[in-house]
Amino acid sequence: MTDGIVLGANQYGKAECRLVHVTRDGDRHSLADLNVTTQLRGDFAAAHTEGDNSHVHATDTQKNSVYALAREHGVASPEGFLLTLAEHWRHQPWVTGTFFSAEHYGWERVPVAGREHDHSFARAGREVRTAVVQTYGDATHILSGLTDLVVLKSTGSEFRGFPRDRFTTLAETDDRILATSVTAWWRHTDLGTDWNASYEEVRATLLEAFADTHSLALQQTIFAMGSAVLRRCPAIAEVRLSCPNKHHFLVDLTPFGLDNPNQVYFAADRPYGLIQATVRREDVSEEPQAWASVPGALE
Amino acid sequence: MTDGIVLGANQYGKAECRLVHVTRDGDRHSLADLNVTTQLRGDFAAAHTEGDNSHVHATDTQKNSVYALAREHGVASPEGFLLTLAEHWRHQPWVTGTFFSAEHYGWERVPVAGREHDHSFARAGREVRTAVVQTYGDATHILSGLTDLVVLKSTGSEFRGFPRDRFTTLAETDDRILATSVTAWWRHTDLGTDWNASYEEVRATLLEAFADTHSLALQQTIFAMGSAVLRRCPAIAEVRLSCPNKHHFLVDLTPFGLDNPNQVYFAADRPYGLIQATVRREDVSEEPQAWASVPGALE
Amino acid sequence: MTDGIVLGANQYGKAECRLVHVTRDGDRHSLADLNVTTQLRGDFAAAHTEGDNSHVHATDTQKNSVYALAREHGVASPEGFLLTLAEHWRHQPWVTGTFFSAEHYGWERVPVAGREHDHSFARAGREVRTAVVQTYGDATHILSGLTDLVVLKSTGSEFRGFPRDRFTTLAETDDRILATSVTAWWRHTDLGTDWNASYEEVRATLLEAFADTHSLALQQTIFAMGSAVLRRCPAIAEVRLSCPNKHHFLVDLTPFGLDNPNQVYFAADRPYGLIQATVRREDVSEEPQAWASVPGALE
Amino acid sequence: MTDGIVLGANQYGKAECRLVHVTRDGDRHSLADLNVTTQLRGDFAAAHTEGDNSHVHATDTQKNSVYALAREHGVASPEGFLLTLAEHWRHQPWVTGTFFSAEHYGWERVPVAGREHDHSFARAGREVRTAVVQTYGDATHILSGLTDLVVLKSTGSEFRGFPRDRFTTLAETDDRILATSVTAWWRHTDLGTDWNASYEEVRATLLEAFADTHSLALQQTIFAMGSAVLRRCPAIAEVRLSCPNKHHFLVDLTPFGLDNPNQVYFAADRPYGLIQATVRREDVSEEPQAWASVPGALE
Repeated sequence: MTDGIVLGANQYGKAECRLVHVTRDGDRHSLADLNVTTQLRGDFAAAHTEGDNSHVHATDTQKNSVYALAREHGVASPEGFLLTLAEHWRHQPWVTGTFFSAEHYGWERVPVAGREHDHSFARAGREVRTAVVQTYGDATHILSGLTDLVVLKSTGSEFRGFPRDRFTTLAETDDRILATSVTAWWRHTDLGTDWNASYEEVRATLLEAFADTHSLALQQTIFAMGSAVLRRCPAIAEVRLSCPNKHHFLVDLTPFGLDNPNQVYFAADRPYGLIQATVRREDVSEEPQAWASVPGALE
Repeated sequence: MTDGIVLGANQYGKAECRLVHVTRDGDRHSLADLNVTTQLRGDFAAAHTEGDNSHVHATDTQKNSVYALAREHGVASPEGFLLTLAEHWRHQPWVTGTFFSAEHYGWERVPVAGREHDHSFARAGREVRTAVVQTYGDATHILSGLTDLVVLKSTGSEFRGFPRDRFTTLAETDDRILATSVTAWWRHTDLGTDWNASYEEVRATLLEAFADTHSLALQQTIFAMGSAVLRRCPAIAEVRLSCPNKHHFLVDLTPFGLDNPNQVYFAADRPYGLIQATVRREDVSEEPQAWASVPGALE
Repeated sequence: MTDGIVLGANQYGKAECRLVHVTRDGDRHSLADLNVTTQLRGDFAAAHTEGDNSHVHATDTQKNSVYALAREHGVASPEGFLLTLAEHWRHQPWVTGTFFSAEHYGWERVPVAGREHDHSFARAGREVRTAVVQTYGDATHILSGLTDLVVLKSTGSEFRGFPRDRFTTLAETDDRILATSVTAWWRHTDLGTDWNASYEEVRATLLEAFADTHSLALQQTIFAMGSAVLRRCPAIAEVRLSCPNKHHFLVDLTPFGLDNPNQVYFAADRPYGLIQATVRREDVSEEPQAWASVPGALE
Repeated sequence: MTDGIVLGANQYGKAECRLVHVTRDGDRHSLADLNVTTQLRGDFAAAHTEGDNSHVHATDTQKNSVYALAREHGVASPEGFLLTLAEHWRHQPWVTGTFFSAEHYGWERVPVAGREHDHSFARAGREVRTAVVQTYGDATHILSGLTDLVVLKSTGSEFRGFPRDRFTTLAETDDRILATSVTAWWRHTDLGTDWNASYEEVRATLLEAFADTHSLALQQTIFAMGSAVLRRCPAIAEVRLSCPNKHHFLVDLTPFGLDNPNQVYFAADRPYGLIQATVRREDVSEEPQAWASVPGALE
């Protein structure tokens, strides 16, 4: 264009394809329940500047690929399925990069008379498992994650020693409720990981570190959670955590002639603290491209 | 008023008091996490017609009662706590009736090295346990319930034999996914029930009936679920269920040269079927007052 | 059944059919954007007790009727369109009653160079217009309503003279912010009303009454709003309002050496007051059937 | 640490401080209604690695600064208020960078008898105005934006000429509904802009460009919208847009013996196309730091 206005970074695709895949192993079924988003990057300038769609793989076509490739390859894990999508789309004409993300919803078998039912399921847990696969030419990046993992400690949390200035009114405390809803992402360096086993290991490690850390600050707890994952999992290079401090305020019951020895709390909505941190291996290169467009990941 | 315009039914109170109560049994803590709503009915006409607040127990006062009574009486169960609130408010001046409701959020202990942690918890399950207590003078009504209990059968569900008219295009099917998010309410006739044990029993019964019923219609499954509860629990008079039919559409993969033997589904958002039914004991009187203002309960 | 367990009240249909109807009056287009829910009542017991669907008009068929009847009859107003649906469904076999509801989303024309564009629109306003039509045999009931009409007065609101008891800590105030999100329903006695004109008149009347009432209590404001509608609109028999008191707390800035003459407020989320009231004509019969299953309407 | 695990990028603060500021110009009031988030970057490593809070300005202190600075400086615009916050926090010890964001909710005066009321307001419009201010040492970056601006064209939109491959089933169309919910951010190069006037100008320009562009692809419409802003506003360097393609599917009414000449549509929820693009001036340097942590902005 002659006016010096140009197209910058761009990408497009189909968001939130709700895919449920049933594996029928005889009478015993299993489920994979995903919400898949695709995004392509490449030579799509003419669509923007001239409305020329000759390079634009329709988002409807991208959606179709999600369902067809699920039939052809199954859905053993969100990471594995996104790699299947990436393998297809990275080789299409005009595509130079790709972004795929998935939310994965857990299900557990309904217990009937002490046995797990073959084909009846209830949604399990509250957290959502997440995954992102990105490609840039031949390079491939894989993140796993989780969101909405809500945890709470009813003791074993302090907050003291912070600076006091004109705007500081908060009292120090050596015993408070600490509660958060963990959003975490971690970057893999081994593209051949057993994704489901790895997810369970990271999830358990995050929970254990949260529980075992006597917390002097939510920052410290977050760093402990990320560090524990890196110590346990050699093929993970980096963990990014974003944790709201879900405040639980001890209610002042003295107007009613009552004490309140850390028993009765008001769980507040807003505002909330928001603490975000990256924990990484010093000797592994950072890969900013792995983190482009990742929702909830601190840059 | 001289213009023939009068005040009809009315009620007011404080909605969504977020209460977390910690029981500290030595080092071993336990949690009750509730969202409590209060509503009073009575002689409040002058506030409406003249702005005379001399009878209006402030909603702030109602909120204070939630936190103070939690300290005085503990929170052993949502039903029990609402009964405590009712016992206080039904005796206040100008109050002739009360409505109290609670959502109860479950937590489970974080496992650390194979043991359950003393004071670290993660939000458990997806469904929300609910309760309503209403009083009308000396009468007391108690409902228990749950919402957002999401269940799915990957087979064992048909839908056939429905009428075909000008607007009917749906094909019959003898094998479909059946999925719903159960909202259920049940009415107790015994005010001295062990509320927590009863809840677990009803929840398990609903799940078992969902799993065990070969479904010819969601209506049939719902009736089976309600009936199973009544058969199991003699002190429950009535069950009301509201169940969206969360459609999972088999994706047509023939354009891509693929079959789809009930493996790949699109999980749709809207529209959805909505099936609501009451299952009750023929010989127990109906109590419409027990159901006034109850969210999600079919009248 | 021999066990004394019977089917009680029940209904079913298709919820949340998202319908957009474009009227093309030459180059000048107009939009009707609705979210329609259908529910049928009637002789459907066999589906529940035996899985016999021979009377069950499929919810998919109900959905098809929404789109087909929109084509045949247009969508001049939500009330009018629901009446069209009712006219169709009340005459189907096994149907003895019907419930239809709609949310109606407003759009306004995009201004371009000072003129309203022929076929480009932006979503208008924040409130959602609502409607319910119910039939019971030959009887027809029509409600109109709105929800999410968020209003605020920065002065002209007091709250004083309320009773003080053990649990009362709230200070009296003669100048506070009053804010609410109005949910209102009103019942028509004239089935031939000009629905769109009536809606605009009621909406304007509610807003004027909110603005013009010097508020001594939210109860008083609500009653004033309902009364104003009844005084203005002779063909409306009854108004039901449900209004959260969206608390705006004056922030105590004295720790920072600052006064706060009603300027800086914290807008709280939860808990909130919840005030519900019915305003009706004394000489018009109440019609509880008109209000069955209506979301957000005080019974 | 000796294990090679280190703290990477991190930031923290108070999220979603709900601030309502009333300006009382005699009897005539005006409102600023904001949701403010603060984040600090700097020398906070010891809090993470050792639980040493001596550098950690409490998030509660940050919250207090929001309300106190609102009293001291007023809230003339979201951008201006965030600059006030930045000016305070960038000079605090251990702080090397800051991030402030705000959502701004519009209100309009309630009309009473043809006049706008002095102190009664209704929430206006549906879109939310947004702003971000970031500092890195002495550098300051300002973004303005909006989200949830929902627009629709009932004609004047085609989608043709896209590639067809194994997974392509979409038919070409020369007349479809085009609807989206615009999220846009734009970067200012003039820190002394009249923020409110600028916002209105950009908003109007986005709407006009949407309306005036005969759309061959949503990509083209987006580029036209961003370009129009840059042409109109010399002090804006860059616009980033993220637009879901809110699909409206023409309903096939032929089974019911009806045609459907672009009149009756089903508005789908998911999946949706998601088109994101940056439009920028070729001769202005890119400033990736300005975009760090900005929600909904394509990197």
